[in-house]
Amino acid sequence: MGRSVIGVDLGGTNLRTALLNADGDILDKRKEATHAADGWKKVVARLVDNITRQREIAVQRGLHVMAVGVGAPGVIRMDKGIVVKSPNFPDWNNLPLRDELEKALRVPVVIENDANAAALGEQWRGAGRGIDSMILLTLGTGVGGGIILNGKIWQGADGMAGEIGHMTLIPDGRPCGCGNTGCLEMYASARGIVQSYREASGMTESTPASEVTSAAIYEAARNGEAVALRVMKDMGRLLGIGIASLINIFNPQMIVLGGGVKEAWDFFIGATREEIMRRAFQVPAERTMLVPSLLGDDAGMIGAAAEALQKIQPGNSEILK
Amino acid sequence: MGRSVIGVDLGGTNLRTALLNADGDILDKRKEATHAADGWKKVVARLVDNITRQREIAVQRGLHVMAVGVGAPGVIRMDKGIVVKSPNFPDWNNLPLRDELEKALRVPVVIENDANAAALGEQWRGAGRGIDSMILLTLGTGVGGGIILNGKIWQGADGMAGEIGHMTLIPDGRPCGCGNTGCLEMYASARGIVQSYREASGMTESTPASEVTSAAIYEAARNGEAVALRVMKDMGRLLGIGIASLINIFNPQMIVLGGGVKEAWDFFIGATREEIMRRAFQVPAERTMLVPSLLGDDAGMIGAAAEALQKIQPGNSEILK
Repeated sequence: MGRSVIGVDLGGTNLRTALLNADGDILDKRKEATHAADGWKKVVARLVDNITRQREIAVQRGLHVMAVGVGAPGVIRMDKGIVVKSPNFPDWNNLPLRDELEKALRVPVVIENDANAAALGEQWRGAGRGIDSMILLTLGTGVGGGIILNGKIWQGADGMAGEIGHMTLIPDGRPCGCGNTGCLEMYASARGIVQSYREASGMTESTPASEVTSAAIYEAARNGEAVALRVMKDMGRLLGIGIASLINIFNPQMIVLGGGVKEAWDFFIGATREEIMRRAFQVPAERTMLVPSLLGDDAGMIGAAAEALQKIQPGNSEILK
Repeated sequence: MGRSVIGVDLGGTNLRTALLNADGDILDKRKEATHAADGWKKVVARLVDNITRQREIAVQRGLHVMAVGVGAPGVIRMDKGIVVKSPNFPDWNNLPLRDELEKALRVPVVIENDANAAALGEQWRGAGRGIDSMILLTLGTGVGGGIILNGKIWQGADGMAGEIGHMTLIPDGRPCGCGNTGCLEMYASARGIVQSYREASGMTESTPASEVTSAAIYEAARNGEAVALRVMKDMGRLLGIGIASLINIFNPQMIVLGGGVKEAWDFFIGATREEIMRRAFQVPAERTMLVPSLLGDDAGMIGAAAEALQKIQPGNSEILK
């Protein structure tokens, strides 16, 4: 029997599952609404249902499902397979997601932070193929981070490493939801860009949020609007300051930028590159490839599957090369 | 025959060599002036001389010297064993130090960055014993960094990782010799503290440098001088901002602070801890041990020896545990 693996991207909006062969080719892909408000039992049941259907497909193709990997948002204790808390799932408090899934599925399950999973996905099958050391930044609503070293996610002592969105960029800058001030996330995320635009165009707090969206700002930049262009350039500059520090710290082979902000690539990346060359050491700065992510919404599923394969076969990370 | 190893700390001022057994106990220790101005050939000859004497001691004790590890300052291409350039050694331009030493000594030689070597030394025999993930910051004239992950130095794609002193702390801050502005090194080093003190006490550029030394500032702090106390507290706060970012990025088990600034520990560490708790995520912030280095000037030699042992026995890093 051939080998296969299932990867899950457990998002606040959508539940994505994919059946992959051991080479990382997607054989079946499913997506449905998460309905987190239904409570964790229903979400888990929905997950079990989708995975079960994909196992049936695997069997039909003569494949054995070796493991299931799940990328989940929020604070994850990967070693214990527990979702400590997750902003999009209000009733998930110390939920033993791994045990719940293993009980229902009787197959090894691995739980991972969603940004870490996306990083591993890009490294296995996306922008970082053949790359051993890589940092992924997902510039979305917030800024997520995943660090790949020696081909593996660097998880840290509590499985909480990679919170690059919460490195301090401006010590007395904007207050962040994490309790810090001046986090990278407050400037290089869609939310940060919207705030910068509101400030730059002199809007007051009473201006309705619906009037300024990140998509509208990118569109304005495309139309040559001066304020939008300046906001995107400033954002690129601040992102570059953070990336320059990462380059001096890690000397990585590659930095991959994903998330919705990537749409506006041309409007910020020049300023980012300038700042990197100005601030980082020359040899590492010139060697670091700075590239957009390739897998889009599939990255998390693919990476969660990769992580599951790595974990069930310790020392066998070369199967992912 | 028992196994032994020689570790070298090649400093701009002193040349230190140590003979160690495979457990990292120092059996013989030598120190002499480097005399870098004599040119590289004489420095290398002096090095070969000391190492040769220690090999004789090893033989007398029935020990075989397996390898020699050298920690050197400046830009090192560890993979090639080359000192690219080194501020303290003006004529060391792309010097193939490894090849020169191997030719003279006929024993495997490993060249490493001095801060990385010190980090590995602390992890093997100092503050970080039994610790797998650890970051060392040497707060000396400048700020050096070494990153230990899974018990090994993280060297990066060009062997230039760990330049933590050159992460940006204040984007438009003090100009740094590296070309960046606002580097951690410009605030948390002895030089940075002196500059802060001069600024805080309203000295002009014409005030002679001899009137303000870091040692004099620590002494003033001990005597309760308000300006000195404030300068040290501000420095601690800025150091804490940088460390909080490192904690969010790495989720390490330990952060070790070495270098001369450590002398003033009590005057800055409170502010550092406060800033960490305020800025880093709670779980990693509470778990990270923040401790002073233990090995002092021996750290580099011990770590260079450890690195040499790791490198000649790939996959055998457990001998260092």
